[in-house]
Amino acid sequence: MPIPVRTLLGPGPSNPYPEATEALARPLLGHLDPEFLHILDETCHRLREVFGTANARTLPLSGTGSAGMEAAFVNTLDPGDVVVVAVNGLFGERMVDIAGRCGAEVVRVDTPWGRPVDAEQVLAAHPAPKLIAVVHAETSTGVISDVSGIGAGKGEALLLVDCVTSLGGIELPIDDWGVDLAYSGSQKCLGVAPGLAPFTMNERAWARRVLAPRSWYLDLGMLGAYLGEGRKYHHTAPVAMIASLHAGLGRVLDEGLPAVRARHQASGEALQRGLQEMGLELFASEGSRLPQLTTVCVPDGADAHAVRRQLLHDYGIEIGAGVGVWADQVWRIGLMGYNARPAVVTLILGALREVLAR
Amino acid sequence: MPIPVRTLLGPGPSNPYPEATEALARPLLGHLDPEFLHILDETCHRLREVFGTANARTLPLSGTGSAGMEAAFVNTLDPGDVVVVAVNGLFGERMVDIAGRCGAEVVRVDTPWGRPVDAEQVLAAHPAPKLIAVVHAETSTGVISDVSGIGAGKGEALLLVDCVTSLGGIELPIDDWGVDLAYSGSQKCLGVAPGLAPFTMNERAWARRVLAPRSWYLDLGMLGAYLGEGRKYHHTAPVAMIASLHAGLGRVLDEGLPAVRARHQASGEALQRGLQEMGLELFASEGSRLPQLTTVCVPDGADAHAVRRQLLHDYGIEIGAGVGVWADQVWRIGLMGYNARPAVVTLILGALREVLAR
Repeated sequence: MPIPVRTLLGPGPSNPYPEATEALARPLLGHLDPEFLHILDETCHRLREVFGTANARTLPLSGTGSAGMEAAFVNTLDPGDVVVVAVNGLFGERMVDIAGRCGAEVVRVDTPWGRPVDAEQVLAAHPAPKLIAVVHAETSTGVISDVSGIGAGKGEALLLVDCVTSLGGIELPIDDWGVDLAYSGSQKCLGVAPGLAPFTMNERAWARRVLAPRSWYLDLGMLGAYLGEGRKYHHTAPVAMIASLHAGLGRVLDEGLPAVRARHQASGEALQRGLQEMGLELFASEGSRLPQLTTVCVPDGADAHAVRRQLLHDYGIEIGAGVGVWADQVWRIGLMGYNARPAVVTLILGALREVLAR
Repeated sequence: MPIPVRTLLGPGPSNPYPEATEALARPLLGHLDPEFLHILDETCHRLREVFGTANARTLPLSGTGSAGMEAAFVNTLDPGDVVVVAVNGLFGERMVDIAGRCGAEVVRVDTPWGRPVDAEQVLAAHPAPKLIAVVHAETSTGVISDVSGIGAGKGEALLLVDCVTSLGGIELPIDDWGVDLAYSGSQKCLGVAPGLAPFTMNERAWARRVLAPRSWYLDLGMLGAYLGEGRKYHHTAPVAMIASLHAGLGRVLDEGLPAVRARHQASGEALQRGLQEMGLELFASEGSRLPQLTTVCVPDGADAHAVRRQLLHDYGIEIGAGVGVWADQVWRIGLMGYNARPAVVTLILGALREVLAR
């Protein structure tokens, strides 16, 4: 059978950088091999640079972004702890679900989908939460929210930020912004296949962690022992995926974070300008639009699903549907990692124009 | 830098089948792409063949083997439930840890490391447990235990079996043996890189599952919705790793399970014979030795760590250390998946002979 080739312009995965793909297929190393441990250490170091952090506890977790979310909560919340969760999309909802399973008292702060979280409102929601959790870049709506404002006013609370769609695409200096814990995914702006969750936590979060988390697999205390001097075995690391992340991060840092961010910014602006010139309306509120993930309203008369199917079938282009009630009313178009470049913008605008004109 | 190449003869990962490596580097597909969903369905079907089961709920979980272990327990045990765990090595110990975190009442049945679990003793440990958990092939000791005997006598209990090191290497007809839940890892006898946990559960286990598990990431109720008709998004599947597992399983089934098992059996026997001819003593008790993972006692006068280092440095061969108190007294030599062949047996026996003669 012919191997299908896709231009992946949904909400992720995106097409990996060639360097990341090449590394996936290299001869496999054992998870305790000195050469692999060197790659792992360098991967953690590179993640620190991309997160903008000095946190010693920065590592790729052995699961997808949602495993990062679960790790953050199960290592932070004991039953009865108060957590404020800002909800302006699917991933805020997921945080509420996971925090609830930890037995925490969840105070949710709702904002309509498509609009950014209001920092003041989040800070006012409870006088003394243990944790405040917010999504930096909502993958379900294409909206960016102000994390630094929450970090500045958090007081004694810990601040947890979902960076799945933001890491490597837009500015995110987590130490400067007062973020105590953060997680991401490999398959968005980092330009690597899905399967790993970059994770980081600072000393403040470490000092207040749950000592015996509900999850063994995501127990950060035990995981830390593998990374530390003793190299104590915890579970078999997904070595091929980590080698690929190592290579993808190397590519990003070789190009330089400012250049990579500028590329995401320019691509997203060009796409959003082009869509509006075609007469289409953007879904995310103005001033809060992510460059790396654009949400656009399906025009009257168009069949949202049929358009996506035609893009996939005729052009090999994947774009995403909307989430929840917007499934048939919104498209999500990602320009992440390797796909954040002018040729891809030209391709998707041209293909969409042709399909809509049929 | 030159790319290091290893012959991976530790307890896993093993060198992947060439087909599995090739598939890792194919153009990436989206996790909701019809072509990918076809690959996923076929992967589940192939897993059923390898597990020897008709279970509809058979799938690769998005984590390593230990995530499979955690999924099995968190979806089965409510606080206060009684679980009997057979412990004859590290992975039985891990089961006790994870079951304890679920709030279960854990009844452990200990057997000295290096010896098989006694089915009668396990069955007699408690009159009415909800779950009995046992490791089929203990990776820490190289010992096989009798699963079918426990399955025959389990009564109302559910039977959970760790098949991480057995699946694809030795006989394992889980339906015939009365196994209700089982998990494995991609990186052992299946000949794929680490990162996925093949998992299966039958209707009996499904009917008695935990309805709101502590883990969102490993909530099998939610995961099942992604595999079913609705294809409801749960988390972004690790598409590259699944494509690789698909290819590795294809290779195994093309060769034929009986032939693959015979190859593991012959390789393991040849290795164990060769080691004994060199005057070395095997660790696992006679009659309970896994062909795919051999444990051998470090001879008097040899430095266990130095020998392993020389094999790695001079020959590019990785073998494993012993676990726990046996770290310096035992080596673990795996002949799994692609490595279960005569040339590899010849290589490791020759290299070990040379290093020990120095």
